[in-house]
Formats: sequence, C-alpha cells, structure tokens
Amino acid sequence: MNDPIQPNPVQPTFRATVRVTLKRAILDPQGRAVEATLKRLGATNVEDVRIGKLIELSLTGERSAVEKQLGELLARVLSNPVMEEATYTLTEVGGEGAPAETPTGA
Amino acid sequence: MNDPIQPNPVQPTFRATVRVTLKRAILDPQGRAVEATLKRLGATNVEDVRIGKLIELSLTGERSAVEKQLGELLARVLSNPVMEEATYTLTEVGGEGAPAETPTGA
Repeated sequence: MNDPIQPNPVQPTFRATVRVTLKRAILDPQGRAVEATLKRLGATNVEDVRIGKLIELSLTGERSAVEKQLGELLARVLSNPVMEEATYTLTEVGGEGAPAETPTGA
Repeated sequence: MNDPIQPNPVQPTFRATVRVTLKRAILDPQGRAVEATLKRLGATNVEDVRIGKLIELSLTGERSAVEKQLGELLARVLSNPVMEEATYTLTEVGGEGAPAETPTGA
C-alpha cells in the first residue's frame, strides 16, 4: 500500500514541439501551390515555399525516457522517415534552461 | 539606361519560417485524433496534442520591407487571424546573427 506520508514522486512533464518537413529532394506540391498563389497576389519576390507539420504535445516521465519515446513516436507514427525529416525541441514544463533542438535519428 | 559599371545592387534574401497554430481556446480536432491514436498505441503519458502548420519561404528585399510584407501575407493569406496565431523567424541567407522570433501583430 502506498505510504501516505511519502507522496508519489511527481514525474516531470515536457512540452515537445515537433517540426516535420519533406526532405529537400522531394517535390512539395503544396508549397508550389501556395507559391503560385502568393505570386498571383503580387508577391513576386517570394521563392521556394515549403509546407510542413508542427506538432505540439506534452509527455510525462524522465527526460531520457521521454526522448527515447518521442524518437520512436516520430519514426513510427508522427512522420514518415522515408520522405520526411523530423526535429523537435523539448522543454520541461515549469523547468528552466533553453530547449535543446534535437534532430532525431529517426 | 542602367550604368554598366555600377552593378545592380543585389538585394538580400531572407528565409522565413512561419508557425501557424490554432488559438489556445479553440478545440483542435486533429490534435485530439492524433492523441487518441498515440494512447491506443500505448503512449498513455501523452497529453494536449496540438497540430499546426509550418511554412518556410524565401523573400528578397530589405529587412524592414520583407517584415512588413510577411506580416501582411500572414494576415491575408497564410493564416486566419480569427482562429489562428502566427509567429515567424527571419534569417538572412548568407547573413550572420540569430534569427529573431517575431510574433506578428496580425
């Protein structure tokens, strides 16, 4: 039975911001469409538009376990490693220190 | 006629990375769907998943003009200020200095 005096150790929570973009060599039809629209609207100085996904999520657990888990989630669910590149920043909720941009080895 | 000796002054090019996310108060059905999938796959420590857009584009021109133009493009084309928030970083291609994260007053 849980010792009532010793509270359950609260695990840290991290906020992850994941950026998923198509690999450079892959044509981005969505980006092309947006680029054409911007040019039609007069923004002729715009080039090389690329559209990607931004995924934000909170994960509870020790940092090393959270990083490992996030790497797996990225490779298996949140991105397609064949065509996409994923990087993420991890910030402890309520913690200090600048978020570390971590390219995933996905 | 253009003075052949004085080459046309090359204008700087900037790479903008735009993050468009739904405002906090607005329900994110896409985020909810991803969250449910992650939990079904066993990631029960995941909470508050939010999905947004990541738009990268190059713009040529003086920094102040590019910033003004980008603010307008964000407000009129690339995001919906009623439901979405947009922030961007602007990095001069070939220039130094850290990109400045600029919340748009869209």
